[in-house]
Amino acid sequence: MGRWASLGEKTRQELLHARAFLSAVAEPPAQALAGFVAERGARGAVDAILRERAPAPVLAEVESRCGELSGERLLRAGEAAGLRLLVPEAPGWPREAFAELAGAREVDLPDMAEPLALWVRGRFEPGELAEKAVAVVGARAASGYGEHVAAEFGHGLARSGFAVVSGAAYGIDGAAHRGALSAGGRTVAFLACGADLDYPAGHGRLLRAIADQGAVVSEYPPGTPPRKHRFLVRNRLIAAMGQATVVVEAGARSGAANTANTADLLGRPLLAVPGPVTSQNSVGCHGMVRSGQAVLVTRTEDIVELLSPLEVRPCEEREGSARATDRLHPEARRVHDALTGVDSASDEELARDCGLRLGRVRALLPELELDGFVKRTESGWTATKR
Amino acid sequence: MGRWASLGEKTRQELLHARAFLSAVAEPPAQALAGFVAERGARGAVDAILRERAPAPVLAEVESRCGELSGERLLRAGEAAGLRLLVPEAPGWPREAFAELAGAREVDLPDMAEPLALWVRGRFEPGELAEKAVAVVGARAASGYGEHVAAEFGHGLARSGFAVVSGAAYGIDGAAHRGALSAGGRTVAFLACGADLDYPAGHGRLLRAIADQGAVVSEYPPGTPPRKHRFLVRNRLIAAMGQATVVVEAGARSGAANTANTADLLGRPLLAVPGPVTSQNSVGCHGMVRSGQAVLVTRTEDIVELLSPLEVRPCEEREGSARATDRLHPEARRVHDALTGVDSASDEELARDCGLRLGRVRALLPELELDGFVKRTESGWTATKR
Repeated sequence: MGRWASLGEKTRQELLHARAFLSAVAEPPAQALAGFVAERGARGAVDAILRERAPAPVLAEVESRCGELSGERLLRAGEAAGLRLLVPEAPGWPREAFAELAGAREVDLPDMAEPLALWVRGRFEPGELAEKAVAVVGARAASGYGEHVAAEFGHGLARSGFAVVSGAAYGIDGAAHRGALSAGGRTVAFLACGADLDYPAGHGRLLRAIADQGAVVSEYPPGTPPRKHRFLVRNRLIAAMGQATVVVEAGARSGAANTANTADLLGRPLLAVPGPVTSQNSVGCHGMVRSGQAVLVTRTEDIVELLSPLEVRPCEEREGSARATDRLHPEARRVHDALTGVDSASDEELARDCGLRLGRVRALLPELELDGFVKRTESGWTATKR
Repeated sequence: MGRWASLGEKTRQELLHARAFLSAVAEPPAQALAGFVAERGARGAVDAILRERAPAPVLAEVESRCGELSGERLLRAGEAAGLRLLVPEAPGWPREAFAELAGAREVDLPDMAEPLALWVRGRFEPGELAEKAVAVVGARAASGYGEHVAAEFGHGLARSGFAVVSGAAYGIDGAAHRGALSAGGRTVAFLACGADLDYPAGHGRLLRAIADQGAVVSEYPPGTPPRKHRFLVRNRLIAAMGQATVVVEAGARSGAANTANTADLLGRPLLAVPGPVTSQNSVGCHGMVRSGQAVLVTRTEDIVELLSPLEVRPCEEREGSARATDRLHPEARRVHDALTGVDSASDEELARDCGLRLGRVRALLPELELDGFVKRTESGWTATKR
């Protein structure tokens, strides 16, 4: 991103202050504000807001918070908490991944507006991670089966060079992150609260490990507590960040189904993992497959094949191992079948048993003998053990 | 079938003898013989065969067996073993169900030729059972999960008035039959050996129960031993008999996959039940869904809906139970969410937390209070327990 490098230090600071302010002044997704910033630039938009010169819909979004807000103070608080602010003007912004979110704002999907900035804790920039990334999501109250599959998928995707994107929740999310970490791969968690918070509380260590091998990211300013609606709003970032979204387990009604719908809206492939029909945890996945919304996947290879068809090694044998008798002519196989049921049989008995002409049976038997399927004994023909 | 009733007793006996002879003289599926019988009638065909006046392909199919065969003797042997012979000329023949098999012969699918007669043990005629029937098939080496689901489907289909068609094998087949029996419903087993044999041996009691509540059926004459290729040949009758075929569990390579392909060839809906991706028993089912060959089904109701859309009662709620807050306006839900995270809050605090205008919050709160979601206390607004 040559543009960022060419900006003076002062301009960069001003942009960071402006974006920090914007990230906090409205509750995401702030459709009017995002549009206004796209039009005026971050600094122009902040200036207009502070002078109350912004359009009414923008002022409505920011009114309750803009009085007491300082971008500079926010940025310092973030830094103190170990966060950096990533702005769309800087390298590392997941521009391509978020393109559909900006597009969605233009076609009036208000819930989809792109984030105004990202607060990041961790080693990599979201833009680097987005180059090759798959979202793996699912139920918090996952089954042992679901967690096992999520970990396997996380591991397999990471080994195939994909960053695993998820939400750091208990259940499927956590298992997917852990699978990626166990493969030494990259993984990124989008939080529904400030990226400085350990949420859920039991995932503090996991979040630190994710930051070490990837990134913990949020559009909410440091310290923002999680709220129910923020999980749904956050889900659009997970869906947008992945080139595809895999739903591992989802009940009939779940946040995962919401992420899935978002992926679908964004035109990203939606993949669902089946499970036992006796499990409520798979009802959502099965429903998505039945309705045609999602493609059924059972292995990491299915996903890799779908996303990078040219990189796939020749598919390993999926058809089950062939049996030696498979390559026999059907009539020869009938003769061999007939012999496996008895100790031994004559040419005539075999012809009758198989319903084949005697001459045909007499032509087939020597061939079968040559190939080692049958042998001639004193009491007649017998099948060899194979 | 008025025609059968109008035939003299002698003619009926001659037809039964001729069909008994035909059922034994060639190894099914006997494409040339089936075509010849369709052209000449059963008695004319037998006559031509015995005089060696039949076309060469027909003679090739019958040569090894026709010397020592007597239809009358076969019929007596069948009766002694508790079997009756059902012929296409008689009422009770599953004419509509087998129409595609006759059609398949005409388009040169040799493995699909219709049976020349059916040997029946049991209470009902196959034709009666075929009026409303679903095939349920799957692996012999089924998992506990697979057997559970097969029994549930067998039970549910029988309760919905469908005869459950299968092959009486261990595993899925047996569980499907048992499910139907436990519902007091009808079920039919097609065997790959004589209908008088208890095969597999451990299913003797099950076969008697199937005969009591439905029928045990075979195109092979009494006493015919099972052979590997006969299972595949038999599968076409199971697929043809069902208005749809449900595969409950199938490995990558299985007889069930063969029945499934046949159902597909016959233009019957093919349905597959998903299972854990960690189970080899579900690899075949998942493959069929992935390739688009089969539709994913998880409940009996899915099948009933597919086959008799007009009979279905309004679908029970599949979406999970709604929450009270679902019907709130998104902004009202945001206010309510914000209160669930704290003890209490003022109008101003709520506006800031939610990023909503103070006036909007002040308009929403009384509505929420009226609906019982929040209440005003001395320290501010609080959420009520719901």
